[in-house]
Amino acid sequence: MSILNETHDPALRSWLASAHAGGTDFPIQNLPFAVFRRRGSTEPARGGVAIGDQIIDLAELHQAKPFSGRAAEALAAGSQSTLNALMALTPAHWSALRLALSRALREGAPEQAVLQICLVPQAQVEYLLPARIGDYTDFYTSIHHATNVGRLFRPDNPLMPNYKWVPIGYHGRASSVVVSGQNFARPCGQLKAPESSAPVLGASQRLDIELELGVFLGQANALGEAVPITEAEDHVFGLCLLNDWSARDIQAWEYQPLGPFLAKNFATSISPWVVSMEALAPFRTAPERPAGDPAPLPYLDSEHNRSAGALDVQMQVTLQTPAMRAQDPASGAVICTTSYRHAYWTLAQMVAHHSVNGCNLQPGDLLGTGTLSGPTLEQAGALLELTAGGKNPIKLPNGEQRAFLEDGDTVVFRAWCDKPGQARIGFGECRGQVLPARSL
Amino acid sequence: MSILNETHDPALRSWLASAHAGGTDFPIQNLPFAVFRRRGSTEPARGGVAIGDQIIDLAELHQAKPFSGRAAEALAAGSQSTLNALMALTPAHWSALRLALSRALREGAPEQAVLQICLVPQAQVEYLLPARIGDYTDFYTSIHHATNVGRLFRPDNPLMPNYKWVPIGYHGRASSVVVSGQNFARPCGQLKAPESSAPVLGASQRLDIELELGVFLGQANALGEAVPITEAEDHVFGLCLLNDWSARDIQAWEYQPLGPFLAKNFATSISPWVVSMEALAPFRTAPERPAGDPAPLPYLDSEHNRSAGALDVQMQVTLQTPAMRAQDPASGAVICTTSYRHAYWTLAQMVAHHSVNGCNLQPGDLLGTGTLSGPTLEQAGALLELTAGGKNPIKLPNGEQRAFLEDGDTVVFRAWCDKPGQARIGFGECRGQVLPARSL
Repeated sequence: MSILNETHDPALRSWLASAHAGGTDFPIQNLPFAVFRRRGSTEPARGGVAIGDQIIDLAELHQAKPFSGRAAEALAAGSQSTLNALMALTPAHWSALRLALSRALREGAPEQAVLQICLVPQAQVEYLLPARIGDYTDFYTSIHHATNVGRLFRPDNPLMPNYKWVPIGYHGRASSVVVSGQNFARPCGQLKAPESSAPVLGASQRLDIELELGVFLGQANALGEAVPITEAEDHVFGLCLLNDWSARDIQAWEYQPLGPFLAKNFATSISPWVVSMEALAPFRTAPERPAGDPAPLPYLDSEHNRSAGALDVQMQVTLQTPAMRAQDPASGAVICTTSYRHAYWTLAQMVAHHSVNGCNLQPGDLLGTGTLSGPTLEQAGALLELTAGGKNPIKLPNGEQRAFLEDGDTVVFRAWCDKPGQARIGFGECRGQVLPARSL
Repeated sequence: MSILNETHDPALRSWLASAHAGGTDFPIQNLPFAVFRRRGSTEPARGGVAIGDQIIDLAELHQAKPFSGRAAEALAAGSQSTLNALMALTPAHWSALRLALSRALREGAPEQAVLQICLVPQAQVEYLLPARIGDYTDFYTSIHHATNVGRLFRPDNPLMPNYKWVPIGYHGRASSVVVSGQNFARPCGQLKAPESSAPVLGASQRLDIELELGVFLGQANALGEAVPITEAEDHVFGLCLLNDWSARDIQAWEYQPLGPFLAKNFATSISPWVVSMEALAPFRTAPERPAGDPAPLPYLDSEHNRSAGALDVQMQVTLQTPAMRAQDPASGAVICTTSYRHAYWTLAQMVAHHSVNGCNLQPGDLLGTGTLSGPTLEQAGALLELTAGGKNPIKLPNGEQRAFLEDGDTVVFRAWCDKPGQARIGFGECRGQVLPARSL
């Protein structure tokens, strides 16, 4: 059995019971990374790996020096206060650490005693950003999102002529990326009603979500060197959930001619857990590129990308209003269910395109996939689409309606991979609550 | 005499003769910061302050502990390998260090002996980026540039309706900001000729410059907190030169709907020296906002900004072709001369706008002003404007022509402030050469 297949084997069982509890996001086949510390403590942040309802404290484990070779190097890097050093290593290092942890977590593993004293319950920790994010780039890889949004502005010609050629992306703001659970105030900005001759400064009235995956990059390419598509995935450390909160009214007035700015840089939330490409390998699939669409230019094309460049990651958006929370703190209404497999451009194409001009990508850089709307309305990953620009508010099960987010609303993204014959690979959650705007 | 005026006094003379050589950029009234090390050495990078043709090595000076209080704190911060720690201090710290250095550099100063052993000739050093740049944001503050570029795309309606209300900006790429003297390869990307039905991958044929100032930010605002315009300049550490190299053919095909991306993120050059707001104080002037234009919204307006928010920084672009260089390595043709005073939006407005939605600005963040074209054609800061989109190539004195940059071309930006009764405050230079594209 290959090393890759060994860590995926659905028959693997851990000595930790919660790792095979029904519906867990974190079985022994997953092993995602985060940075954490005990909640309320001042202890140093350090890397951790999820298993069941526990976290393996990598700093603690590193003290015990249980591994050798690349696994030991990766463990040392992962014990730091950000994962940048681990991300800067090679896929062979990431793989070696994953295999070593997988073996040590199995029933009967001699390392059980060493690992057991390095476990911290997830319920007792707070998470930090997984990495110091150098640059954050947001893509626009769902053709369904691009078409839905384009239709609101240009009903006759929704999709730009460049869309099927260029994996469209733009630079976002790294400083305001926050980790799941950190809430944020409704942003203020210039708002101009269509009938007004002048804008006013006010709190956004059209606050929205964007359902995305985040992509943490690993090893760097030098300035001036492109990453070939055949090597592109070697530069991807792993994936997380990402909510690109968006103020549609600020965006509409500011975005021409240079793109969104203050409409999106007040907060971007990501999930704490970064799921490795290896853990996702069983869920690869061919990208959905309709027959008749132009073939990607050679630098965006490869045999592997054509057959298996996409990932079937199932995604779900839950909205909890203050009224729902008052009834039941665990309640919420699912307002979108979709899959990452509907994206038009793949991870490898994002990396190859971003670097084709020589732009240097660095360990800890974050890419966003863009809103991952699927082909049907219920699969739309933004309220802008779900409500047709606010015209058709969504009706919630408790009788409430929402065109856009209201103060106190909490949005939770979840994602997982699941199919017969494979263990379920979960992403945890990405959660954020809208606080009232500051007073002007 | 106030402390501020004391450091500006044009009668001040240093014990260092080169500080009052005719035409020096770095008299005792300037005292800009950089990060440097001896060329070819492996010694640690550290902060330095320019005086005449020398650099005060702040790490060396810090060892001697010549100052006390805030000046000493600022000196300790400035001795590090980036200026981020110095930028994170307060304007009072920056001012105290400036005053202490000014006094120690004067004829007869008792600190002369201590400082003299900390001098390193500028001719012997290499520069590094002044700061670890967290985020880089590029603005669009010249109405003349916005109009010139808009006219190429929309002859009847060149200026967007939002321009006179919104200080337009967008996020740029921090990882590819390089220091003056670092050359770069012509970028490759998707190019689509108007008559072609499909793009091809190729080297850019329309490579351009953008003449800008860079703005290094100092002390941070917390996420969710806006910086009032009356405090905005307290968040500005200083200014440098910035060349936002731009591939116009890549830009034209990729930029809709989310703005420029690969057209601009292959390289952005900045000058090594960061000139303080205090050094520039004598050159303040009122912004050029024509009568009849809408008043800025209150969050973008202040008494001080109205009367003195602009800066009269004179700027010049020199082009040196390989043929010129073969004749005379010091040769070059001036292709643009303008002033920063023509910008429509000021530094304070950029900072107040960027943070009005709560976006957190951090020490070491870099803002670009956008291309600083003045009102006349010769004052245009990009070839796109100077040549009307390449249609009217500029004629160089040696008989050559340029529509856009060719391989081997070197571009040098220079800037300075000068007026009767004041010492000349120079920015040094920002230099870069276009190397051939990598082979595809």
